[in-house]
Parts: sequence; structure tokens; C-alpha cells
Amino acid sequence: MKLYPNAQLLSMFEHYISAMPTPDEPQLLYAPIKYGLEEGGKRIRPTLLMLAYNLYAEDVERALMPAMAVEIFHNFTLLHDDIMDNAEVRRGRPSVYAKWGENAAILSGDAMLILAYTYLQRTSSERLPQIFGLFNKMAVEVCEGQQFDMDFETQPKVAVVDYMRMIELKTAVLLAGSTTIGALLAGASEQDCQRLYNFGIELGLAFQLQDDLLDSYGDERLGKRIGGDILEGKKTILMIEAFSRANEEQREVLRTTHLRKDISNEEKISTIKALYDELGVPERVEQQIKHRFAKALAILDTLEADTDRTVELRHYAENLVGRKS
Amino acid sequence: MKLYPNAQLLSMFEHYISAMPTPDEPQLLYAPIKYGLEEGGKRIRPTLLMLAYNLYAEDVERALMPAMAVEIFHNFTLLHDDIMDNAEVRRGRPSVYAKWGENAAILSGDAMLILAYTYLQRTSSERLPQIFGLFNKMAVEVCEGQQFDMDFETQPKVAVVDYMRMIELKTAVLLAGSTTIGALLAGASEQDCQRLYNFGIELGLAFQLQDDLLDSYGDERLGKRIGGDILEGKKTILMIEAFSRANEEQREVLRTTHLRKDISNEEKISTIKALYDELGVPERVEQQIKHRFAKALAILDTLEADTDRTVELRHYAENLVGRKS
Repeated sequence: MKLYPNAQLLSMFEHYISAMPTPDEPQLLYAPIKYGLEEGGKRIRPTLLMLAYNLYAEDVERALMPAMAVEIFHNFTLLHDDIMDNAEVRRGRPSVYAKWGENAAILSGDAMLILAYTYLQRTSSERLPQIFGLFNKMAVEVCEGQQFDMDFETQPKVAVVDYMRMIELKTAVLLAGSTTIGALLAGASEQDCQRLYNFGIELGLAFQLQDDLLDSYGDERLGKRIGGDILEGKKTILMIEAFSRANEEQREVLRTTHLRKDISNEEKISTIKALYDELGVPERVEQQIKHRFAKALAILDTLEADTDRTVELRHYAENLVGRKS
Repeated sequence: MKLYPNAQLLSMFEHYISAMPTPDEPQLLYAPIKYGLEEGGKRIRPTLLMLAYNLYAEDVERALMPAMAVEIFHNFTLLHDDIMDNAEVRRGRPSVYAKWGENAAILSGDAMLILAYTYLQRTSSERLPQIFGLFNKMAVEVCEGQQFDMDFETQPKVAVVDYMRMIELKTAVLLAGSTTIGALLAGASEQDCQRLYNFGIELGLAFQLQDDLLDSYGDERLGKRIGGDILEGKKTILMIEAFSRANEEQREVLRTTHLRKDISNEEKISTIKALYDELGVPERVEQQIKHRFAKALAILDTLEADTDRTVELRHYAENLVGRKS
């Protein structure tokens, strides 16, 4: 049974999505969809889905339909999130919201969500009802995660446990749904499907915590400027961990620095990062990333699938999260 | 085989949807969904679905799941349309957009669309892939219709044929999808499914044309004030028909009256209606409604289903469109 390198699965997917036919009219509905799905994304979710599929079956083309569904769904969430967050830039380009306006972004996002279901429906499988059910559960949980994330912005204090639950919903369930759909479609046992779900959750949590860490401590590889979260006063894991360890004076600094008008952005970032360092925040977050990531990898060892076959999924996960840990 | 009166199907549906369980948290996600689905809507789409089902099968409870799907989908479109149209009132109450703000309306609309799919998925049928495919096609067409409708607002002139295509997409395909899903689920032949699709299209066109007519000539039964479309300068079938029959001087009146600051709303409405009357517009539109409605009823006579069984669907259609024609 052929084992595909993850780069080959990615290229197969990229080839397929770039050839996706879309109608020309109405132009304001379909142009934003094409734009949103153009190259530039990392295609993490479809790659995970295809890697999980390839653990149990080799006709990986069969996984392209649900792979399209999870990728289109992910891009739908970005499109609507950018409206809600007033985000004008996405992957170094104007967001759909900034380029076409709010109404086009709402409606083309809706059509994208429906398009995701259209590819899901084309999945040829006796297990379609089960896959469809899992997709629905995951999709509504992503909405719940986004709502909790927005709720946090107006709350004075967020507990670490609530933050972890939020990123599980907003980020991790979609990774978990992707690996599980791949396994379901390939005919994996119920136990292995559940294990790959748990793998996706742990990987997704590690991935999101790392994303938070890189926003303040990373390099420019993510296409974001460093310190964006600090300047917005966002309640990331760094801010929440810092707050839970800070004294009252330090808390005041954490609360107010991003609002100050008397210092530059660079000074705001260095002030907050100095405090994070003083409180041992980056080490604490790195430790959590390592812990989650180790849990994810340990699950791979328990699969019924041949251990030799898990090497590609393992490499891909390491490349995704292992970069900084 | 038991034939249910349409009022009984409606009450069965109302009972079911009012008992729909929804999570409490996050509150800003689920409260707008509950609000949007409360009593007040006419439940046209689920009733049509259940009536079509009952043509071929009597265990109508089985049709409740897809009936929920089409009703929730319809209310999702209203929720997002109200943002796009800045509509602050819906069924005599504040719209979700007005009550909770734009972000909550976007996100709870998204969750509602996913909820519609969740009920669709719960439909127990070997034909689920086909029903799912039809639902997707219908859903994306409704988005296309909404985009064409918004496009029209910035176009100087709209052709009648383009308007009819727009309302077919925006309104009629959802009625047609509802009757067809009911028939598919009940095991109707492919021919009868196609006939009931065509029935839904003709009924939907008649229904939307009548909605346009009642906005200017109707009574308060719709919960809208008379003349709303005229005051917004909306390109309804009345305006488009009037424009196509008007001379240059009359066209100027049609184009500019709603923008005038020197006359009252009542005068604006009476000015435009006088012109509509002079141009024979209401008669022309009524004629089209009758024509479409007659086509719809004629299709019912061609069904393989026993003619006796079509009586409830016929009565319901008459009640829906026959009111003023």
C-alpha cells in the first residue's frame, strides 16, 4: 500500500483546488470566493485529512472531496471573522471585507459555507451520514469558539481553562474533524477514528498556543508583524498567564500599556514582553506546547494502523508545531 | 392512507420547532437563533414540504427533520439579509441585527445555516445524498438571488426577464426545493419529484410577484406599512414594469420621487401609485400572478399521486397566493 509524502498530498490538493470551477456571475458573489481560496494558505486541514486517510487506504484522490470541504470551511470562517474583527489584511493582502466591502463579504462567506457542504456531499462513502454529522458538530463548535473569543474581549479577566476551551472549539476541533473524516472515509475502526480525533485536538491546541507565542516572540515567517496581539491588547494565552502571575501593579501595566498614547508601538511591545519575561510566561507556554505535542505524538503510537505508516503524519505534525519547541 | 389537513401539519411543525433544544452558552450565539425561530413566521416552506410528503406517504413525522432544515435555512437568510439591507424591523419586532448588533447577527446566522444542515443530516433516508445535493444547489442559488437583488439597486435599469430570474433564485427555488425534498423522502418517482419542483417554482414566482403587489396595494396583514418599497425606491416588478411602459418624463418621476425632500411620504406613495395606475401596472402584474398560479395548479393535475390527495396542497397554495388574485 503506497504511502504518500505529505508534500505530494499537498501538491495534489493544491492542483485540485486551483482548478476548481466557479461560475462568473454574480461576480460580487464568486470573485471573493476565488480570491479567498487562492494559494497562500498552508492547507493544513486538507493535508491532515489526506494523511489520516493514507494511514488506512492508498487511493488518496478519494479524499479530495472532503479535503476541499474542510479547506473551504476554514476559509469561510476567516472571511467572516475578518468582518467581525475589522481585519483589513489577511495573508499579506487586503481581506475580502476590505477589498469588496461588508455585504459582499457576508454573502460570499455564506456561499462558501454552502460550497464546503457541496464538496462534502460529493464524498462517495457509505459513511456519509456519519461524516456529515461530524462535520456539522465541528462547524457549530467553531462558531461557538469564535463567539467565546469575542466575549473574552469585553471580560475583565479570563481563566486559563476557559481560554483553552475556547481555542479547542475555535481551532482544534477543525483539525480533529479533518483527521477523523480522513480516517472514517478510509474505513478505519471506530477506536482509531476516536484516537485520531484526540490527536487532532492535542495538535490543534499546541498549534494555537504556538501561534500566540510566535505573535510576540516569533519571526516574520507568519506574515504578521511581531507584537500585533500586544498592540491590540488581545487576551492571548501569554496575557492570561501573565495576568494570573502578576501582582496588582504589574496587572495595571498589562491592562493599560496598549492604550497609552505617550509611548511608541515599539515601546509598548518591549514593555509587555519585558513583563512576560520577568513572569516566566514564554517558558510556561513553551512547556504547555511541548506537553500537548507529546500527547499528540503518543496517540499516534496507539493506532491500529502500521507504525511505519504514521511517519508522514508525524513529520507533518513536527513541521507544524515542532518548529519552535 | 391518511391525508392531513394543512393546518394540522403546520401545528405539528410549530409544536416541534417550539420544543427545539438549544444550548444556553455562548448566549450571544444562541439567543438570536431562538429569537429568529420563534412563532410569527408563516412556516410556508416546512408546510409545503410536509404536504408534498403526505401526497405519497402518511408517516408525516418523518418529514419533520427536513422541514426543520428548510425553515431554519429560510430564517438564516432573513437574518443575514437584514444586515445587508440595514433592516431594523422584521415581523413587527426589532431584527436580530438591530437587537444584538452586526457581529452577533453574522455569527448566529452562520450557526443557523449549520443548524439547518444538522437537521437535514438527521433525515433518515437512503436518498439522503440526493436530498443533500438538492439542498446545496438550492442554498447557493438563494445566495445568487440575493446578490443579483443587491446588484439591481445600483443598476439604472433592470429587464423584466432578469428580475424574474432573480426572484426565481431568491424565493422560488426554496419553495421548489421544499416540495421536492418532501416528495423525494416519501419515495415519489423521479418524474413526480421534477413536477413538484416545477410546481414550487411557479408557486414561488406567483407568491413573490404578489408580495411586490401587496407592498404597494395590499393591506396591513403582512405586518409591513404600505408603500415601503416605493419609499426605498426599490426595483420591484411594479417599478420595472412601469419603467418599461413609461415615457421619458414619467421615467424621471419614477426615478426621483422617493428622493424628493419637498413632499411627504404619503404624497410620494400616491404620486407613484397614480403613475402605476395610469400605466396599467397593477393589472399587468395581477395577470402574471394568475398565469403563474394557474401553471402551478395545472402541474398538480399531472402528478402520479391520486388526485384526491392533492386537495390539501391545492388549498394551501390557493390560500397563499389566491388571496388577492
